[in-house]
Amino acid sequence: MESPAVLTLSQLPYFSPQKSNRKRASPSWPCQPRSSQPTRLHCQKMYVPGFGEASPEAKAANNLHNFFTYIAVRIVTAQLQSYNPEAYEELMEFMNRHSLNDGDKFCANLMRESSRHKVLALRILEVRSAYCKNDFEWDNLKRLAVKMVNESNTRIMRDYVSETSPAESEK
Amino acid sequence: MESPAVLTLSQLPYFSPQKSNRKRASPSWPCQPRSSQPTRLHCQKMYVPGFGEASPEAKAANNLHNFFTYIAVRIVTAQLQSYNPEAYEELMEFMNRHSLNDGDKFCANLMRESSRHKVLALRILEVRSAYCKNDFEWDNLKRLAVKMVNESNTRIMRDYVSETSPAESEK
Repeated sequence: MESPAVLTLSQLPYFSPQKSNRKRASPSWPCQPRSSQPTRLHCQKMYVPGFGEASPEAKAANNLHNFFTYIAVRIVTAQLQSYNPEAYEELMEFMNRHSLNDGDKFCANLMRESSRHKVLALRILEVRSAYCKNDFEWDNLKRLAVKMVNESNTRIMRDYVSETSPAESEK
Repeated sequence: MESPAVLTLSQLPYFSPQKSNRKRASPSWPCQPRSSQPTRLHCQKMYVPGFGEASPEAKAANNLHNFFTYIAVRIVTAQLQSYNPEAYEELMEFMNRHSLNDGDKFCANLMRESSRHKVLALRILEVRSAYCKNDFEWDNLKRLAVKMVNESNTRIMRDYVSETSPAESEK
């Protein structure tokens, strides 16, 4: 089977070269079918199926959201450990009983545990907001992810070549 | 316990107001302890423990890396479904036998399955690279994640208030 590694959109069926009126900062993904109408490829991007009304960006943002809550909990516990060992113990004990997989649920439960836990929950909410806006290096995230894809692609292809041509690798 | 929701760095122990010489695009996270020396808070950001030599950005980039492989597989299967049903069936059959949780491992295995699968693997590698660089909306990701944190924080606090003050909510 000889085929190009990446299809261009004009090679795909149903592609019509309409001018895309898509905005970069659109909250959802106009490429995706919003309804059952056959309007799937009216933008310059590759069609990604399977995200329904959401978008890959929204899915990734949701994962990051839980990650930020996890980070905020780590930040707050590290702070408490230094200056408030009692609150630190209480938070650690709560963490042993509640999963951090769903960050919002964790915070909502923490808020209802006791008035002392409520103060901790409010702090975690504030820290995750501040971390997400000020501390997290968004440019660095993109740079690292692109680098990771490049390096992984090279490594996967190199490993394959060196495995399938042992004579070459012994030179 | 009355304490501010977010501690400023000057309130933390061991904080010395040295001028931060940190670059935004630094690949790792100078805030974090690189060694056992007590140099933990020499930057303007909150200390995040528990990431060792890596950084939160690297951890998030690694998750996105696997996500991009998943997306690339979805894109390629959607393309194949239209114009190459045989290859589509082969890829779907392979996906049933191999997990996509580790994207690199999936691609490496796909490459070794057969010469036809190898072509598919190479296409997936190219698509994830193109998607990550051109199609994925990084600005939108940040916007959505910040919005999600804001809205979640508001919702968690509003829910708590409406639960704990029923008289207020009945007005």
